[in-house]
Formats: sequence, C-alpha cells, structure tokens
Amino acid sequence: MSRAADILQFCTMPFKRIEEGDIGYFRELLGPTFIHTDRENLERCASDHTEDLKFLPEVVLQPGSVAEVSAIMKYCSDNYIAVTPRGAGTGLSGGALAAHGGVVLDTKRFNKILNIDKRNFQVTTEPGVITQVLQETLKAEGLFYPPDPASKGSCFIGGNVSENSGGPRAVKYGVVKDYVLNLEVVLPSGDVIWTGANVLKNATGYNLTQLLVGSEGTLGIITKIVLKLIPAVTQDLLILVPFRSSVQACEAVNAIFLEGYTPSALEFMERDAIEWSMKYVNTSAIDLPPDIAAHLLIEVDGNNKEELYKEIEAITEIVQRYDVGEILFADAHEQKQMLWTLRRKVGEAVKSNSVYKEEDTVVPRAELPQLLTIIKEIGREYGFHSVCYGHAGDGNLHVNIVKAGMTDEAWNTQLPKGIRKLFTEVVRMGGTISGEHGIGLVQRPYIDIAFNDVQISLMKQIKNIFDPTGILNPGKIF
Amino acid sequence: MSRAADILQFCTMPFKRIEEGDIGYFRELLGPTFIHTDRENLERCASDHTEDLKFLPEVVLQPGSVAEVSAIMKYCSDNYIAVTPRGAGTGLSGGALAAHGGVVLDTKRFNKILNIDKRNFQVTTEPGVITQVLQETLKAEGLFYPPDPASKGSCFIGGNVSENSGGPRAVKYGVVKDYVLNLEVVLPSGDVIWTGANVLKNATGYNLTQLLVGSEGTLGIITKIVLKLIPAVTQDLLILVPFRSSVQACEAVNAIFLEGYTPSALEFMERDAIEWSMKYVNTSAIDLPPDIAAHLLIEVDGNNKEELYKEIEAITEIVQRYDVGEILFADAHEQKQMLWTLRRKVGEAVKSNSVYKEEDTVVPRAELPQLLTIIKEIGREYGFHSVCYGHAGDGNLHVNIVKAGMTDEAWNTQLPKGIRKLFTEVVRMGGTISGEHGIGLVQRPYIDIAFNDVQISLMKQIKNIFDPTGILNPGKIF
Repeated sequence: MSRAADILQFCTMPFKRIEEGDIGYFRELLGPTFIHTDRENLERCASDHTEDLKFLPEVVLQPGSVAEVSAIMKYCSDNYIAVTPRGAGTGLSGGALAAHGGVVLDTKRFNKILNIDKRNFQVTTEPGVITQVLQETLKAEGLFYPPDPASKGSCFIGGNVSENSGGPRAVKYGVVKDYVLNLEVVLPSGDVIWTGANVLKNATGYNLTQLLVGSEGTLGIITKIVLKLIPAVTQDLLILVPFRSSVQACEAVNAIFLEGYTPSALEFMERDAIEWSMKYVNTSAIDLPPDIAAHLLIEVDGNNKEELYKEIEAITEIVQRYDVGEILFADAHEQKQMLWTLRRKVGEAVKSNSVYKEEDTVVPRAELPQLLTIIKEIGREYGFHSVCYGHAGDGNLHVNIVKAGMTDEAWNTQLPKGIRKLFTEVVRMGGTISGEHGIGLVQRPYIDIAFNDVQISLMKQIKNIFDPTGILNPGKIF
Repeated sequence: MSRAADILQFCTMPFKRIEEGDIGYFRELLGPTFIHTDRENLERCASDHTEDLKFLPEVVLQPGSVAEVSAIMKYCSDNYIAVTPRGAGTGLSGGALAAHGGVVLDTKRFNKILNIDKRNFQVTTEPGVITQVLQETLKAEGLFYPPDPASKGSCFIGGNVSENSGGPRAVKYGVVKDYVLNLEVVLPSGDVIWTGANVLKNATGYNLTQLLVGSEGTLGIITKIVLKLIPAVTQDLLILVPFRSSVQACEAVNAIFLEGYTPSALEFMERDAIEWSMKYVNTSAIDLPPDIAAHLLIEVDGNNKEELYKEIEAITEIVQRYDVGEILFADAHEQKQMLWTLRRKVGEAVKSNSVYKEEDTVVPRAELPQLLTIIKEIGREYGFHSVCYGHAGDGNLHVNIVKAGMTDEAWNTQLPKGIRKLFTEVVRMGGTISGEHGIGLVQRPYIDIAFNDVQISLMKQIKNIFDPTGILNPGKIF
C-alpha cells in the first residue's frame, strides 16, 4: 500500500466531484488563464515538501481578488466541493495537499505588499508574498520581521501564518503568532471578516486572530495579513561549536539560558545532519573530526558590536565547560552564509538521501537531553535510525527517521508504534507533537496523544462553526 | 434609572434562582465555611473597580479544589444557575459582577504558586495569587514576569489572564497573552482540560490557550496557569517630561520609537491626571507650572547601567525637540517609587473626584495625537470633560469622562452618543474599543462598533460550544 493510500484510508467523506458545469462556473469567474485542469498543473499542486505524499486535485484555481475567493468559497460550500488552500507548497505536514481531490485554491496571485506603515511599525501584506522578499523589503526600510523558517527563500507568508511557523530566530524573537495583529479572512460561506484590529493591545472579544494563526487552512482563506514589526537589527555574530557528545550539546543549550543569555539562534545538529548537508551542497568547508557527535550553531544579534563580542565570549566560556572540539568563529559574511546554508539545507539533504519521515517534537527546553536520549532508545527498540536537528533553544527537535536499511514491513507497521511511543514520551515531558510544522495529514493519526476527547470535540466544533459543510481543507488536523 | 438598571435592561435571561436545595448541595460539597449568603459577603462581591456598578449575587462560593469547581459547574449547568467567576474584584469593565444574580465563584482559595521551574523559565500558578506577590516571588529566583497592571498590588493573576491585562511594561515586554503557555480550565460541563502544552512553540491543533486568554470568564474557569518567564532585569532609569502641549507629548511618543528606542514604559498623563493624583496621595512632590499641559513618564531598563544612561540621554534629546519644561530625572529608588505611585493612583484619584466613566481606547501608536484631538473635540460637542492618561507607547489611552458639572440628562442620553462617536473614530483609525480592560458589561453596548454581525455570530457560537446553557458569566461581552 502506498503512503498516500495508507493515509487516505481514514479520509472517507464523499465530496462532489468536479464536473463540466463547475469548470464553466470557475472559468466565467476567473477568466480562462487562471483555471487549470492540465496534468502538469495538477501534478505541480499534488505534492508539497512533506515526505513522498502525492494527492492530485481535480482543478487548480488562481483567484486574483478577495471577491473571487469569496465567490469560489460560496460556490464550493453550496455544491459540497472540497477546497484546499495552497501557498508555495513548502509545508512539512501535508497541509496544502488535496487529500480529497476537488479544488486547490492557489494564492500565488496574492503577491503584493500592500502597505508598509513605518510610523506604526506595521506591514499589511497579501499571503502570496515570499517570506524572504517581505523581510528584505522591510529591512530596506529599517524594519524587521524576524520569523525565518528554513524555506524562507521560497515559502509564502500566508503559509507561515497558517502553520504558525518558527525558524532559528524564534528563540529570541518568537514565532509567527507573536507578529500577527490582524487578518482578513474569507470564510467558507464567502463572508469576509477581519479577525482583530491593527493594535498592539486588544481586549475586545475573543481572539479570532490567534484562532486563525496555525489553523492550517481549515477555518478560512487568509487574504490580508497585518504584521507587527520591530526596528531592524544591524549586527550579528555566529559560532559553530562541535561536541563529542550529543546529549552534552543539548545540556549546554540550557546552561546558556540559565546564565541569562538569549541568543538570536541556538541550533542543534547531529553529526549526520551536518555531514549529509555538506555532501548535499557539495562543500567540505567544515572540518569534521571522527569524534564529533553534534554541533551547536549559536548566533547573537544587536546593534552594539562590542556588546555582542562580550556576549559571544561569555557563551563560548559556557560551552567550553563541556567536551567540545575547536570552535569555529564566523565573522565574515560569506562564512556566516555558508554555515546558515548548511543548517537550512539539512532537511533537503535528508530527503535526498533516503525515504524518510520527519517528526517535529517540542518539549520544555531543559528536557532536551532527555528527549534526545529517549529518541535513540526508541530507535533501537523499534529498529530505526534518526537524524536529529533543530531549534534547540526552543526545545524544538526535528527527528528525521530514515528508511534506508528498514524493510517495508518494519517501516509500515513497527515505525508507527515507535512514533506513538516517542510522542507519548514527549507529552509526558510537558511537550507536544508539533512545534512548527503543524499536524496536517501526517501527524493526524497521533493527535489523540496530544489531546483527549474533550479537547478534540471543542476543536471539531470550532471547525464546524467556521466551515459547517466541512469543505475547507478536509482531512487535516483531525 | 440607576446605572445598574440601565445596564440590566438588556440582560433578560431568566436563570433559576438559588433555593434552599441548592444551598444544601453547595454546603455539602464545600463545607459550611466556604459558602456565604450573608449581606456582608454578598455586598463585598457586588462591586469591582468599575465605576459605580453594583449587582448582588445570591450566594458566594469559595471552592478549594479543581474537583469542587468541576462539581459546582456541572451542578449549575444542570440546574441553569448563573455563575460569575471572581478574582480580586479589581476589574474595570464589570466582568466579575453577577449581572444575573446566582453564584459568584470566588477564586481566592486558589492562592498557591505551584511550581517555579527555573530550568525552563516557567511558573505554574493558581489563579488567586496576587500579581505582585507572584512577581516578587519570581524576582527572588532571578526570574521576571513583566505584565504589571496598575492594580498589581491587589489584582489576581487569574483576572489578568481573563482580561488579557497590560500595564506600563507592555510597551517593551508585551501583555499577558504573550506569557501564557498553557491553562487548566474547568468547562461549564464540569470537564477539566488543559488548553495547550508547556512549550515555547506549538503548532498542534487550534490555539485554545489564546482563545481563553482575554475571554473574560465566559468560556471556562481557569484553575491553573503556566507562564513563560524571562531572566530578571536589574537596572532601570526613569524620567518625567512636562510638555506645554498634550498633542505634542503624543507626537513625541512616536518620535522615540522612530529613532529606534523601545522604553520599558512610556506613559502619558494629562495635567488633570497628575494634579488629581498628587492631591489624592497628598503630595506636592512635583512642580506643576501653570503652562504644563501633560507629562510623559519614560522608563528604560536593562542590565548595563552605562547603556541605559546613553539611552535615556538620547530619549531626552528627542523629547527636547518639543516644547518641554524642566525634565525630572529620577535616580533614587524613593523618587521612582513616588512617580510610579502617582501614575498608578490616577484611576483611583479620578474615581474619588467625581462620578466617571472610563473608556480604554487603543489605536496604532502613531495615531495618538489624532486620537487625543478627537477626544477633546467630541467632548466639546457632547459637553463632557475628560481626563486622559495611559500607555501611550502602546497607543492605549484611558479616557476618564467625569460627570462633575453634567446634568443627569446629559450624562444618560448625550454621553452614550459621544462615546459611540469616539469609538467609531477609534475603529476608523485601525484601533478598537478596549486595549486592556475588556468589554464586560460597560462596553457591551458598543461592541457592534468593533465587530459586525458575522464576527459577533462566530464569537457567540464559540461561546455556545464551551457553555451551551449560557450559565457562565452571562451578560458579558455580547
């Protein structure tokens, strides 16, 4: 059984199939250029960056206005047609995949930064703007929007909001939810609402904004985003610290915080992660002695270089209490870029290496050494190898389980049991099953570990309020 | 018609009255010590700090365990008895008042700090802990929980979470919602849930935590709170800057941010505010020349005193571009305390001076001068005098409308029209009708200005999911 079929077995809602009449309606609405039923476009929208999943939609629609989105949603609600919203397709939990066929609502034409309000440190943007483009445009104005998922060069800000993305800087600056002030959302009914107001403080009614952030495209289509910004930061320093013990690397993470330091990034990479990434980007830039088990990539930022040198020196002293190799101090821009490229490419490197499954575990930061130990124990028990890396400063560890060497039988039957055990341990430690990737399709079988029936029932009822016919992104989360 | 009767005219749900049998059930559950029907206790719980409102409950219950809260909620849901949760009763929108009689659920016995997790920079606390006690206990451990409402010496942390409170430090450190990681909540059904996990990043399901924060006790009873903490800050500096023009004072606020500075407090006070507060606390500590129209109270904090002196010097240069009087630099602890006392006592001073009504307007920060101008224009048009002060750095201005000199007729019929016009202008500027006090009873007549029918309908349906019989804090928000 294929992975897709395996997942689809629990998706049984019989949505109406797209017929000629529906195509006619959409063509009339959008014009012939922005409706696609050809194989190439359907294939393009059949996958995202989640493992090897593939779900063909029946039609791809590319609306260009809020009114068009509204008309599509109303039509699909009235006709019981499944709609899956899609940004850049860089998601890691299958959120943008049309698990039930129907419409993929492609937001790529919503690609305008509408208003940079320098006076108020705010930006209003459409969802189809690439995150890095948004960040660089803002930086040129002296403004800073920190969240930086690994895919920032290709992902859309709308997808980031839908998944409540993080990235390395979250440890100092917070995740997407900490920057979203207000959202314009098209509901499945076709109604258009704003979720809040463009203010830093709001005690007016329920927080619909934060209900939408991270709702994985299941409650409405986000068409405008108002983000809070901060003044641009001008300086940073970066070090790469090799450890002879992975668990010690995790221990060092907490030691840094306990001494009162908050780096702007504190990333953990197991040896395999950095080794595979070097191979993938074809560099030997980093010396990797055989006794090195893991690295911490540590950045500090601010506006006073002298202070930053002091800070990085203090952090260096802290990590040297552990069994570390030679610390690489990256001062030059190119060197920093290279280290960040290696870190950002780990995911792709793992993907290119083997069939894999990625878990996005998150625990209270100090439990990280315990988490890593347990991951390896469970791996031994259930016969899988994992490559671990991620945002250690947030307690957020990506566990890439590689298939290489496992039988299909072990992969399909033993592995889910191992993952179940891992998530159970994560929740026992006060953590949860996704820190920044979302539940989507792939973590859905494990949602009962994070939530009991009462919690799930509340969430399902909330879903039902926004989307009473259940046409919006069906099969995701629960 | 009294204010209470005036408000009650839109509260018509016929809840069951408390009878002997109900009292018997509660007495059996809680023991005789923690159930009160005497006049003194009912009176004590009939008011909070909101204007002159008074609503007598029928019984005050003081449960001491989650199981007792659960039993109370189930019983009241089953018997259609109204339940109003109450913290310290310092609220400013009437959220803790039993507008429909029935039970007041007093949380004062939930007064334990359960776990200070220094390793993870987290605290788990019960809701009935006084905010300042919590802050000082944490400070002694080197930990910092920043939100500091004016009433911090007497308010409960549970009330702060329910109202999503702010306070002066919000401008740099954020409001309560930015620190709440997870909540234990008793639902009206009696079910007990946790809303999230004890982690810094969470992309698992809908954000029930942020739905509960600021929900004003209408969705569930909060029984445990997990807060994120930051390392304690050791140094601060404070200046008081007198301006000859109130509007210029508001303009200076934004200038400070545009130059890249983020003070740890940036408070605005009109002349009346500081004058009345001085009278109220019986001091003449501040020289108040007749040409001074307003003050900014500006604090910077950090761990490097030298840096702070540089920062405050730069801020001083910025404000001196405006028409300012002699700047008071508060270095000594007693002097800082005195200035903060004057700021914190403004609310009480206004209250002691006249019958009043307080609006909690919030706009994007740069619109503050415009807001202040409009407030005064509307005041002239509708014949009311206002004393304005508040968290200017957040665009959050408290507008205290004083009755002194107004006829009852003007107060009861003209004033609501003026407030309606003010809120309409606030929303037009991108703002909303409460920044940190909540809607409760007193802003409820104006909720249609902040939200349209679709938004209200979504919120009412969410309320209905959590509280299908509508017994929990009825008459609040909408």
